[in-house]
Amino acid sequence: MKNERLEKQIEFILELDKEKNILRQTHLTDHGRRENDAEHAWHMAVMAYLLKEYSNEDIDICKVMIMCLIHDVVEIDAGDTYCYDEEAKKSQAAREEAAKERIFSLLPEDQKEELTALFDEFEANETPEARFARAMDNFQPLLLNNSNDGNDWESHGVSAEKVYGRQGTTKLGSELLYEKTDEIIKHHKEAGHLK
Amino acid sequence: MKNERLEKQIEFILELDKEKNILRQTHLTDHGRRENDAEHAWHMAVMAYLLKEYSNEDIDICKVMIMCLIHDVVEIDAGDTYCYDEEAKKSQAAREEAAKERIFSLLPEDQKEELTALFDEFEANETPEARFARAMDNFQPLLLNNSNDGNDWESHGVSAEKVYGRQGTTKLGSELLYEKTDEIIKHHKEAGHLK
Repeated sequence: MKNERLEKQIEFILELDKEKNILRQTHLTDHGRRENDAEHAWHMAVMAYLLKEYSNEDIDICKVMIMCLIHDVVEIDAGDTYCYDEEAKKSQAAREEAAKERIFSLLPEDQKEELTALFDEFEANETPEARFARAMDNFQPLLLNNSNDGNDWESHGVSAEKVYGRQGTTKLGSELLYEKTDEIIKHHKEAGHLK
Repeated sequence: MKNERLEKQIEFILELDKEKNILRQTHLTDHGRRENDAEHAWHMAVMAYLLKEYSNEDIDICKVMIMCLIHDVVEIDAGDTYCYDEEAKKSQAAREEAAKERIFSLLPEDQKEELTALFDEFEANETPEARFARAMDNFQPLLLNNSNDGNDWESHGVSAEKVYGRQGTTKLGSELLYEKTDEIIKHHKEAGHLK
């Protein structure tokens, strides 16, 4: 006698495994290999827990953590879109929408709805939890890249202006973490790692 | 003017990055490469959230998730000890105790205490949250290995008896997930993947 609900959940869980093979542009500390989506999400979720005191607003940290853990699920189909690649970003929304529907549909209907809502909330960036999760999505690769002398920016020829554009959303989640962000960007601009 | 508290937290966060280089014996789905600790912890935390309805007892899912996320931190120093390697397991406790002290000491004192307590609670396996997190620690590699025809067991010559010994703790966290576990073990015993 099969438990159909559990079988669906297991199918989704095994599908998630593919996130471990989606490579990002960020490199691990000590000038390591490229990071994958699963590692990035894990790191973000632990950081959210450790740094929650710096959120601008009261947050449900449990919700922030699960948002961090699943925010890149769509990249299983849509791939990682580098945040400073303007060409790839044009088709990003359509690719990710189709992926979201296919992947979350593996789950039982109630969980499909729940996870889709969490995913959409993160994307919309209009709630305290989404804003803090987004700050983690910015701050995590910033810390790794900072530890690697800004190499990820330098190798892509990224400008300080672009980095401020992306990292600016950190301020909405955490003024204090944005102060640290600004300090890091200024340092790499002065050092010539950012155009 | 440095924010010393934040600097300590960042130092710990960068130390955590090393978990991405600690390889486990489990292989990714589709007969992929070996999994690392960060990926394993991420997968466990998402699974805990998705499968929480199967916990034998009421649980604080937020606590379960953070336990899952940090439960292997000590392996940064102590390495991964394969759960069926009896020789390595003899020195495991001492190696992990020293690692725990060094790594959590990077944090501000209050967070060192908090994370050490969560880590110890997971290890002791005496609370509802620890029992469910432990069930995830068992069930996650079981699902991957099952998807790979039990290759991880076969290549190590593991016996069904040993697997039952380890996976038995799943029952304390979730009777229902243990039923599935039992079904999977029986299948691989019959197929000759387990001695």
